[in-house]
Amino acid sequence: MKRFTTICSLMLAGSVGLMAQTKKAPTTSALDKKVDAMIASMTLEEKVGQMTEVTLDVVSKTGASSHQLDDAKLNEAITKYHVGSILNVSGTAYDRQHWYDVISTIQTVAAKDRLKIPVIYGIDAIHGVTYTVGSTLFPQEIAMAATFNKDLAHKAGEITAYETRASYIPWNYSPVLDLGKNPLWPRIYETFGEDPYVVKTMGAAIIKGYQGNNVGDKYHVAACMKHYLGYSAPLSGKDRTPAWIPDRYMREYFLPSFADAVKAGAKTLMINSGEINGVPIHSSKYMLTDVLRGELKFDGIAVTDWRDIQYLYTRHHVAASQKEAVMLAVNAGVDMSMVPYEYTFFDYLVQLVHEGKVPMWRINEAVHRILKVKYELGLFERPVGNPSDYPKFGSEEFRAASVQAAREAITLLKNNNNVLPLKKEMKVLVTGPTANTMRSLNGGWSYTWQGEQTDKFAAAKNTILEAIQQKIGKDNVTYEEGAKFDSLANVDDAVKAAKKADAIVLCLGELSYTENVGNIDDLNLPDAQFKLAEELAKTGKPVILVLAEGRPRIVTKADNMAAATVMTYLSGNEGGDALADILFGDVNPSGKLPVTYPRYANALVNYYRKNLENGNSDDSHGYNPLYEFGYGLSYTSFRYSNLHLSNADLKDGQTLKISVDVTNSGQRQGKESVLLYISDLYASIAPDTKRLRGFDKIDLKAGETKTVSFNITPADLSFINDQSKSVTEPGEFKIQLGDQTQNFNYLSTKVQAARTGKL
Amino acid sequence: MKRFTTICSLMLAGSVGLMAQTKKAPTTSALDKKVDAMIASMTLEEKVGQMTEVTLDVVSKTGASSHQLDDAKLNEAITKYHVGSILNVSGTAYDRQHWYDVISTIQTVAAKDRLKIPVIYGIDAIHGVTYTVGSTLFPQEIAMAATFNKDLAHKAGEITAYETRASYIPWNYSPVLDLGKNPLWPRIYETFGEDPYVVKTMGAAIIKGYQGNNVGDKYHVAACMKHYLGYSAPLSGKDRTPAWIPDRYMREYFLPSFADAVKAGAKTLMINSGEINGVPIHSSKYMLTDVLRGELKFDGIAVTDWRDIQYLYTRHHVAASQKEAVMLAVNAGVDMSMVPYEYTFFDYLVQLVHEGKVPMWRINEAVHRILKVKYELGLFERPVGNPSDYPKFGSEEFRAASVQAAREAITLLKNNNNVLPLKKEMKVLVTGPTANTMRSLNGGWSYTWQGEQTDKFAAAKNTILEAIQQKIGKDNVTYEEGAKFDSLANVDDAVKAAKKADAIVLCLGELSYTENVGNIDDLNLPDAQFKLAEELAKTGKPVILVLAEGRPRIVTKADNMAAATVMTYLSGNEGGDALADILFGDVNPSGKLPVTYPRYANALVNYYRKNLENGNSDDSHGYNPLYEFGYGLSYTSFRYSNLHLSNADLKDGQTLKISVDVTNSGQRQGKESVLLYISDLYASIAPDTKRLRGFDKIDLKAGETKTVSFNITPADLSFINDQSKSVTEPGEFKIQLGDQTQNFNYLSTKVQAARTGKL
Repeated sequence: MKRFTTICSLMLAGSVGLMAQTKKAPTTSALDKKVDAMIASMTLEEKVGQMTEVTLDVVSKTGASSHQLDDAKLNEAITKYHVGSILNVSGTAYDRQHWYDVISTIQTVAAKDRLKIPVIYGIDAIHGVTYTVGSTLFPQEIAMAATFNKDLAHKAGEITAYETRASYIPWNYSPVLDLGKNPLWPRIYETFGEDPYVVKTMGAAIIKGYQGNNVGDKYHVAACMKHYLGYSAPLSGKDRTPAWIPDRYMREYFLPSFADAVKAGAKTLMINSGEINGVPIHSSKYMLTDVLRGELKFDGIAVTDWRDIQYLYTRHHVAASQKEAVMLAVNAGVDMSMVPYEYTFFDYLVQLVHEGKVPMWRINEAVHRILKVKYELGLFERPVGNPSDYPKFGSEEFRAASVQAAREAITLLKNNNNVLPLKKEMKVLVTGPTANTMRSLNGGWSYTWQGEQTDKFAAAKNTILEAIQQKIGKDNVTYEEGAKFDSLANVDDAVKAAKKADAIVLCLGELSYTENVGNIDDLNLPDAQFKLAEELAKTGKPVILVLAEGRPRIVTKADNMAAATVMTYLSGNEGGDALADILFGDVNPSGKLPVTYPRYANALVNYYRKNLENGNSDDSHGYNPLYEFGYGLSYTSFRYSNLHLSNADLKDGQTLKISVDVTNSGQRQGKESVLLYISDLYASIAPDTKRLRGFDKIDLKAGETKTVSFNITPADLSFINDQSKSVTEPGEFKIQLGDQTQNFNYLSTKVQAARTGKL
Repeated sequence: MKRFTTICSLMLAGSVGLMAQTKKAPTTSALDKKVDAMIASMTLEEKVGQMTEVTLDVVSKTGASSHQLDDAKLNEAITKYHVGSILNVSGTAYDRQHWYDVISTIQTVAAKDRLKIPVIYGIDAIHGVTYTVGSTLFPQEIAMAATFNKDLAHKAGEITAYETRASYIPWNYSPVLDLGKNPLWPRIYETFGEDPYVVKTMGAAIIKGYQGNNVGDKYHVAACMKHYLGYSAPLSGKDRTPAWIPDRYMREYFLPSFADAVKAGAKTLMINSGEINGVPIHSSKYMLTDVLRGELKFDGIAVTDWRDIQYLYTRHHVAASQKEAVMLAVNAGVDMSMVPYEYTFFDYLVQLVHEGKVPMWRINEAVHRILKVKYELGLFERPVGNPSDYPKFGSEEFRAASVQAAREAITLLKNNNNVLPLKKEMKVLVTGPTANTMRSLNGGWSYTWQGEQTDKFAAAKNTILEAIQQKIGKDNVTYEEGAKFDSLANVDDAVKAAKKADAIVLCLGELSYTENVGNIDDLNLPDAQFKLAEELAKTGKPVILVLAEGRPRIVTKADNMAAATVMTYLSGNEGGDALADILFGDVNPSGKLPVTYPRYANALVNYYRKNLENGNSDDSHGYNPLYEFGYGLSYTSFRYSNLHLSNADLKDGQTLKISVDVTNSGQRQGKESVLLYISDLYASIAPDTKRLRGFDKIDLKAGETKTVSFNITPADLSFINDQSKSVTEPGEFKIQLGDQTQNFNYLSTKVQAARTGKL
């Protein structure tokens, strides 16, 4: 809405043009003083060492199998270069004893250095501590988002933190807070989906789970919000390629999840490897200092992503040498460099300080942040944990949490004539490239970077096929591969088997991948998978299309042939069992799509589109996804009624209470995610058609009714205006809850802000 | 390059933050004084009438076939509403006599109004005066760009202006100066392609052709640069949907063509119907006043596109009523509203002035611009032209210019084993959906909006089939349709005929379309066309793939099967003949791609990408188009040598002369477009991999050598920095001409501009 504008005191409302305080303000806490005292005693080399992060490879034996430490290299790293951090890389998953040995060895050497500063070891435990054998692997973030249950995200964070500390590691490069806006991007599955509100809400929940009330206790780890900022929106869809993001949308869509993560107390942050509008974030003082420190008030560690300071020279071409790249990055606000393979960063930075090209206050500021987090994590007192402190590692209790998450994530998209749930006495053909591999349940970052060894490490877990066999008995199940991901296999055998079956569970989708390895050139699933679908559909037997994939690949032709369609995303080690529970009716599905499922490869529009994209009467090519954001069916039905507002209007300083009754109008218990949308009818910046502004998940017995309520303040109606300010403009708004809608007015007497229509 | 920055005095270097002069500066010319005197005598209603443009339908008989004027409606339009302009719409093409009658009638009524102000009639004569029967239709802009011959663009402009005046119309809604960046967009063919340098160069050339030295003489018309700004870059690829364009890139890529058009003297401008970053351009004071008037110094008419003031309310939702929409648009800087169907704009604007919500100076400013252009066009002295003044209308001389343009546009992309040119005694099968229709040669805006009646109006012109029949005799040619655009036809007949032929000319591509009607959801050509290609390829006969299409649809599978591939774009009424000339060797092809031809539907990267997109050693999915921008083969070969620079370095105030020898090293005469690329090796904003900075087309006999030279100044090396300023940073640059490369340094003593890495 519009006409009169009032500037809200939101987290983004800080003065945009104001340069952030660049020199560190006087510190006051006891810890700050302790850290400053230590810094006062440090040599330049000791300081720069703290800012240096190398991979475990750098301190490991050359040519040996991975993760065998080399004493000489480790000593060099610690005593010559004083490295502050080591990064996990290479190798696969190892048992807890192995991790104990690795971390103990590192910290023992660190304790021999002059100042005895412990090393902080960081790892990508992005859906459980994936590099430890026997750990609890959860659904990936995209699937956690589909649960629309923030308690589950919090729980997953708590358990992962516990198991990461059980692996003696205090720093987790998670969560991804990027907005999953572009379905081509190979890391969509690592996000909480396309919606800014879901991303910030689930993100804050998992961070609180990781860090707990005391990040320094033995059960919690430092979270790392990533990848600041705009990493998920490359124009080309390819990983680590340039994004075009106007400042307004940077603030409207991409920044809120980081702002809320800072409020949630996130200790560290990793920087986007890409460019926004031609500016690499690693050299952007605007993003790393003015916005991150000045506006968001983040005071933790900003670490680079892989080799990204070097890439300022070799890829981005904004530095004319490696040394200049170091200068640009550190002066912009980088605290720690993930170098990752050698010590040129160290050498150049020492030189730059001597030459006066990087000021000492910048070094001290960075080191302060690093040491403070090390103290907060308790590393000085307890550099290595106690092996016996973690009896719940890999426990049934933890597994149950992953099962519940998978059950609440899996999303029923189509169910013609209630073909689902299947009866357990049916004869079922299970087929397709994702039917019998744990890779398509876990995705990348599982036991290895690309997840290619998951079938070995998760051999005890059930694939979709195994879970169905276990559910209804092997005698009722036939399996034929039918097709590989990108080529046909024994289609004829699959067709023959289909003719003898009562139903076909056709499992399509993707293998595991992440980062550039997952780049694709066409969002359509490969032809071979459609060919298999087509041949099976010809049998006339009902096709249950199961999608196991990290992003919404175009499946329209297969979906059109299917009687039912079930999206599993990447639902983790328990995903096969959870799917079988749903297919055969032991669990009622309750997931909803956290992304728009597009119908065509070149029709990629998010739900929070502009009205201009709605498809006008004279335009047959408007917004027309295969399935909308927030869509998901149940085996029961829900009726919404009695949408009620506490007041007809909302005024400054007031809260509007919105409530609605939700009734389980079907025959069985079910869970429902209640999504609150608000639309600004007219505004000085063309408003989104609708925006999610609240969600809640409830559990209803058949026939039961619950009242769900949300509180809305003017801040919830705000948007970023043409001065890059967060404002709420008075006027009319529309509320939508299920099929219930109601309008209200926001009344304010504030005068209108200047409206110049600036881009 | 980088490090030290000097701000160049380029057209874009004006102070960005400075608000443009909003009230009209005192006018000085005799014409300005005459216009002001007239304005002083006008009533408010007479002024607002001048700002009102309605369609011809509004003054035509209801229910009658189109273009039959209704005396009462016309009188109402002129004497009650004083409308300043009428817009062509509906109907089809008409003969010159019809146009004489229509325009004469309108101007006769206008001459009876109190002030006798002539009406300005506007029409989309975008590739020739397409709504006049017998006119000369040129290749569309995309094909004109492929000629890389600005003399041809200038000539096409001159001829079109002549024939438009011969149709008694003084105002042409052309050229499109939008950057053809997104291949999905249905109006790509109306652009001069993806490159900012080509667009601005060809755009200025055609404008000079349209307007001549004296726009008021009987052979020239007012050009209308469109669509200001960013219309061509919708994020979704769909027509008239939102774009995300950061201010820097708006200035780097999209603005230069308009800046150069203003310098070339363009009299009028049409506004983009979309939104940039949520701001509709029609309500953007920043774009319509601050940038357009304040920085670009444009003083002609800014007219809306179709109904776009109303759409500020109904589509963009930035106005809460129609009346507010009028206020926003006029205050932002709109001079004339293409209403187009009624008079609410008139009524609301009169009210708004009375209410003080639109100032009178804004009205006077708009009317001044409108009346001035009418004077400049000579409409006051000569509201209707003299029928006998145009003996060259539709002449052979004009046709020859169109033939030449088509011959120089058509681009040979593949020619395995020199399968082309074909021998005239060969037996040829001509097949495919574009083989025998003039629609796929002319595209939209041909005789009708969507070009669906082109086969009737251009019946005397040769389709591809007819041209080949004429070239080698009907006895040597078999024709089978094979496939329609989106479905199979008589494939079996085509295969049967192929087996008897020596070569297959397989014509794939698109039918005619424009605007939203041309929206697509998948850039891949429809399956049916690939199926036809596949079946024909199985015969083992050489397939000559001919593409007739308005945008680079994905044809990779068909191209892989073809022995030769020829791109015809939309090459106009003479395109069939020009293609036959090339296929059978009477003409040597010399077109080059003015757009990147993508290999896959979701791999859409322009040639002037960032280095980050080049495809790194650890990334197998980098830039990998099917054919690069600037690619095109010849029947002869060209050798580049002796790249020479007048100086080793470039200094401020100097010019660097770059020359290269080009030799026709083959056996026959040929034309070569010489493209000069310059790369900035390092810069404060990540530099493009390379940028076109000059082109020239030369004609070489076999064995002949010519020296081609270009002059480069520091301004040619400039880019838009993070303060939205045009700057040239000292450092190293790389020149590329053919296979010749050389580096040079730009030396400058200017100090470095602030580098904050602002997005």
